[in-house]
Amino acid sequence: MEKRSLAYEGKAKKLYETDDESVFLVEYLDQATALNGAKKDAVKGKGQMNNQITSQIFEKLTVKGIQSHFIEKISKNEQLVKRVEMIPLEIVVRNVAAGSFSKRLDITEGTDLPFPITEFYYKEDRLDDPFINDDHVAFLQVATKEEVQKIKELALQVNHLLQELFLSIDIRLIDFKIEVGRTEDGTILLADEISPDTCRLWDVNTNDHLDKDVYRRDLGDLIPVYEEVLQRLEEKGA
Amino acid sequence: MEKRSLAYEGKAKKLYETDDESVFLVEYLDQATALNGAKKDAVKGKGQMNNQITSQIFEKLTVKGIQSHFIEKISKNEQLVKRVEMIPLEIVVRNVAAGSFSKRLDITEGTDLPFPITEFYYKEDRLDDPFINDDHVAFLQVATKEEVQKIKELALQVNHLLQELFLSIDIRLIDFKIEVGRTEDGTILLADEISPDTCRLWDVNTNDHLDKDVYRRDLGDLIPVYEEVLQRLEEKGA
Repeated sequence: MEKRSLAYEGKAKKLYETDDESVFLVEYLDQATALNGAKKDAVKGKGQMNNQITSQIFEKLTVKGIQSHFIEKISKNEQLVKRVEMIPLEIVVRNVAAGSFSKRLDITEGTDLPFPITEFYYKEDRLDDPFINDDHVAFLQVATKEEVQKIKELALQVNHLLQELFLSIDIRLIDFKIEVGRTEDGTILLADEISPDTCRLWDVNTNDHLDKDVYRRDLGDLIPVYEEVLQRLEEKGA
Repeated sequence: MEKRSLAYEGKAKKLYETDDESVFLVEYLDQATALNGAKKDAVKGKGQMNNQITSQIFEKLTVKGIQSHFIEKISKNEQLVKRVEMIPLEIVVRNVAAGSFSKRLDITEGTDLPFPITEFYYKEDRLDDPFINDDHVAFLQVATKEEVQKIKELALQVNHLLQELFLSIDIRLIDFKIEVGRTEDGTILLADEISPDTCRLWDVNTNDHLDKDVYRRDLGDLIPVYEEVLQRLEEKGA
């Protein structure tokens, strides 16, 4: 697969055209950002970590029947994905109170939620990715009512599978964010990445943060933490 | 009906027990507040205005078949209402972009919305009445799924009737907030008040603000504006 012109540059990855117009090459960058880009640092080795972790996770989800954009990892920091029309939503699923949810409702971080809570954020840097409801989604015309229903079901399925996967490597899935795209025939596919950049992961025994909160909250070095997650996934991720 | 001990004091009204334990007496205060109470002023005559306006509106809604807590106005600044268990939600319906909706999604104030947009806010001063979604409502256990459905339907019915009513007095209903309560047998009743404190009302010809934005945004004196709304309602409100 030949890498051609840059199609899109995100905060921590670049998407390139390839000689197959239905396929993008994703390059994961050595870049950490938080607070919608207000905090930003080069972190050597992070691109490789994220590419390897997200590839592992998407492979495992595929085996479990989740349809995604992922095709294959082609180098330490590159993967091929199906080209889809991205839906500009960040879909968050929460199993345990943390982050903005804890702040919004004043619920102590670490409190188990009685059921998984789904939230939509409108992916628009200019607006700081605002929290929105279903009526806003319809108003913004980013997804139809039927798509919203499918997206919620997909998010909860992914949540169930990720909880199982992470629990098998002694990690508690606190919350995570996914993004989805639609193919030309209208199928909704899981897209973007699933990694410690996009999940809150706590060690089941120590409650240590094994995710980007280490960077967001200046709790220590990010690379050893991401290496720990990758190692556990490779060694015994079910 | 005898006025007894104070049962509840809000920002702009007081609720008293009466000799009928199923009935509250509501006293509307000469008090204007905005920004969750951060801006606050005594405004002579405002209590009378709000009590008269909201009484007119609730009477008209009753005629149209809306079940509410309203019983009757008993003086210029007092009314009797059925005692209900208040559901701590502020239910906002928007027909035209304004206020926080315009800010959240960067939509110019005054833009017509293609359909009425409903939003829930958790009524909790301590948290600054946060915007929440249906999953948060379920988590907070403030209303059941069936109640949420009923509340949304009621809000849209009220919207339809209020649009009609205000249009008949040359006022465009931009958006409004309602609150609801449940009776002992579980019926959801429209409660609280509907007035220029809780609606955005623009003159259809001049687009002048005929609501609390006059106070919120320091656009002029509030009383003449509220008097104008009351006068139009009394003279020709259909």
